[in-house]
Amino acid sequence: MIETDILIIGAGPTGLFAVFEAGLLKLKCHIIDALPQPGGQLAELYPKKPIFDIPGFPEVLAGDLVNNLMEQIKQFQPGFTLGERAETIDKLDDGSFIVTSDKGTKHKAKAIAIAGGLGSFEPRKPLIAGIENFEDKGVNYFVKNPEQFRNKRVLIAGGGDSALDWSIFLANVASEVTLIHRRNEFRGALDSVEKVQELKSLGKIRLVTPGEAVALGGDGHLQWVDIDKEGATERIETDYFIPLFGLSPKLGPIADWGLEIEKNAIKVDNSLDYQTNIPGIYAIGDVNTYPGKLKLILCGFHEATLMCQSVYQRLNPGKKYVLKYTTVSGVDGFDGSRKEAEKAVVKAIE
Amino acid sequence: MIETDILIIGAGPTGLFAVFEAGLLKLKCHIIDALPQPGGQLAELYPKKPIFDIPGFPEVLAGDLVNNLMEQIKQFQPGFTLGERAETIDKLDDGSFIVTSDKGTKHKAKAIAIAGGLGSFEPRKPLIAGIENFEDKGVNYFVKNPEQFRNKRVLIAGGGDSALDWSIFLANVASEVTLIHRRNEFRGALDSVEKVQELKSLGKIRLVTPGEAVALGGDGHLQWVDIDKEGATERIETDYFIPLFGLSPKLGPIADWGLEIEKNAIKVDNSLDYQTNIPGIYAIGDVNTYPGKLKLILCGFHEATLMCQSVYQRLNPGKKYVLKYTTVSGVDGFDGSRKEAEKAVVKAIE
Ligand SMILES: Cc1cc2nc3c(=O)[nH]c(=O)nc-3n(C[C@H](O)[C@H](O)[C@H](O)COP(=O)(O)OP(=O)(O)OC[C@H]3O[C@@H](n4cnc5c(N)ncnc54)[C@H](O)[C@@H]3O)c2cc1C
Ligand SMILES: Cc1cc2nc3c(=O)[nH]c(=O)nc-3n(C[C@H](O)[C@H](O)[C@H](O)COP(=O)(O)OP(=O)(O)OC[C@H]3O[C@@H](n4cnc5c(N)ncnc54)[C@H](O)[C@@H]3O)c2cc1C
Repeated sequence: MIETDILIIGAGPTGLFAVFEAGLLKLKCHIIDALPQPGGQLAELYPKKPIFDIPGFPEVLAGDLVNNLMEQIKQFQPGFTLGERAETIDKLDDGSFIVTSDKGTKHKAKAIAIAGGLGSFEPRKPLIAGIENFEDKGVNYFVKNPEQFRNKRVLIAGGGDSALDWSIFLANVASEVTLIHRRNEFRGALDSVEKVQELKSLGKIRLVTPGEAVALGGDGHLQWVDIDKEGATERIETDYFIPLFGLSPKLGPIADWGLEIEKNAIKVDNSLDYQTNIPGIYAIGDVNTYPGKLKLILCGFHEATLMCQSVYQRLNPGKKYVLKYTTVSGVDGFDGSRKEAEKAVVKAIE
Repeated sequence: MIETDILIIGAGPTGLFAVFEAGLLKLKCHIIDALPQPGGQLAELYPKKPIFDIPGFPEVLAGDLVNNLMEQIKQFQPGFTLGERAETIDKLDDGSFIVTSDKGTKHKAKAIAIAGGLGSFEPRKPLIAGIENFEDKGVNYFVKNPEQFRNKRVLIAGGGDSALDWSIFLANVASEVTLIHRRNEFRGALDSVEKVQELKSLGKIRLVTPGEAVALGGDGHLQWVDIDKEGATERIETDYFIPLFGLSPKLGPIADWGLEIEKNAIKVDNSLDYQTNIPGIYAIGDVNTYPGKLKLILCGFHEATLMCQSVYQRLNPGKKYVLKYTTVSGVDGFDGSRKEAEKAVVKAIE
């Protein structure tokens, strides 16, 4: 059982920054995310694109913003349960909660911060009979650990940035990379399209377009995929099949937790602390709704900050909280590290 | 008469970022600040100190954050009235406002955003009889334009960073710099103290400690200041006297504008748009108060953003606003410039 002060559901920018604000208040956080990496929409949907409205950054790549946030919260040693979806919640008599993931991992926390964005990112799966029998036995919808594919034969399907970028990356890892797409045209960053073109010319990526996977099979583990090529069928022997058809976010199981839901988002008290109708459960960032709500990253940062204050009051009833400026008081990490401004000296001049 | 969509009172981080969010909505801004430079507390009180809780910056110097914000809003060409204090406000029949400064500058705007922080920064003045007669006639409480002192004799008083830093800077501009302080010890960044020590040894700064200015005079313009040196009086002939005894913020005239005030701050509706009790007048950042308010920079950014949306609705009643992501739609400056993400290509691979 993982135990923590605040369990954060969602490792998007809002959830990540919450770790920092909680840390300033000496509260420990653990984050669970369905995706294999932190960063939410920024890491999954547009890591190489610039954002222009993060205060203080005239321009920042989404992926860099995530890296910066990871660096900023490092001192507070957040725990991560990645690649698992928060599924059920139970409230204990002492006011704490137990959240269990789809893989059975249990997390006990004194407060819950749902920072689930548009929902848990679920892969769009191709409609191939029996594909579910091979999930995690040769069929992967995410690349969680690229080393898994070392010296293996890999078949990637898709026509967007993910399919292009993983084909490029795995060309140097797998023994064989085949990329199939049901159209001839790919849609992605110019760089990526050109790189795939180059690797194809070098024989490091095999391209099958137009082509569509229509059947698959194997003995326990995946062994082959049948491709429909404008009527003709080709069987490709492969160890892995990675269909990358995009992700669609689903509020999913959280919708059944008894929270007030409006327009697919969780209603919160924005006049105070972004708490939901269940005391001790907060919702921050894109996942919440209130009058005037804007689904912007900078708003999630503010909501996370006020949420942490409220959790602090909840866990320390009656204790008077005095706001400390990081510039003045420094930042003490849970890892023993300390950041602080250089002190002024008091010194006579001779 | 200066005309604009939103008149922002206060050029701290909150007021500056408001220009950006307004610009995304095609609203023009003008900023008035009592200080001679933008940046509010960050520029005036701790420009060289690191801040650790700006989201996405593991560490950023306050002065750099201000520079970044200035860079970020440049495209939207804000106007500035610096070194003047917003003094009175009048509401016109068409719903717009006229704000007049202490120097008589008039600003007409469709909405007012008070981003006044802890108040307008007012210098702490030394208690010397008749000093007010020489204000702007040789007595300056700020250094607004250092060129004013070129080849002039300057007397600076104070024992902190401002006194040290301006002594250093003006040592290369003025014909003569004298620094007086009523103690022997200075309190400031080690760098600055050492630099003053060095300039003193080189004869570029004359030091009088302990020393206190007790009288001054001149014929129309300042000509001399009397210094008490532990009982003995020395007369120093000088063109300028710059007492730098710190600034104290005062809500000042804004307190008389009919706004609801609580604990020296302006009450706003945080459940919606940070509007005050007077429609069309908003208060954002440190200057406002509401249940759970935190005087943090990142909160001001969020408040500024929601305020701009509300102003947009107010000026475009009934018009449906659709949030656009900067990453997706780019940013079109009022200066004709455009920032945008690289577009995806749709391209066949041969
Ligand atoms: C193309 C694009 C461009 C954008 N441009 C901008 C912009 O310029 N400026 C801006 O401010 N915003 C922009 N946005 C919006 C911005 O990305 C979101 O506001 C931001 O990602 C919200 O952050 P978050 O942390 O609230 O949620 P998210 O980033 O959505 O992260 C939520 C995370 O929670 C996880 N999750 C949800 N439910 C569960 C569950 N039950 N179990 C486990 N994990 C779960 C999800 O997998 C996801 O990783 C853009 C979005 C897109 C798609
Ligand atoms: C030493 C120190 C360290 C800090 N450290 C941190 C930190 O680590 N993190 C953090 O988030 N915050 C920190 N803060 C607080 C932070 O500086 C404030 O939250 C922030 O400056 C508020 O921004 P603002 O734009 O609302 O107001 P301010 O920065 O206060 O700017 C307000 C401006 O309005 C002007 N003004 C007011 N009234 C008038 C008028 N009538 N006419 C004209 N001009 C007027 C003032 O002159 C001033 O320039 C710190 C503050 C100090 C002093």
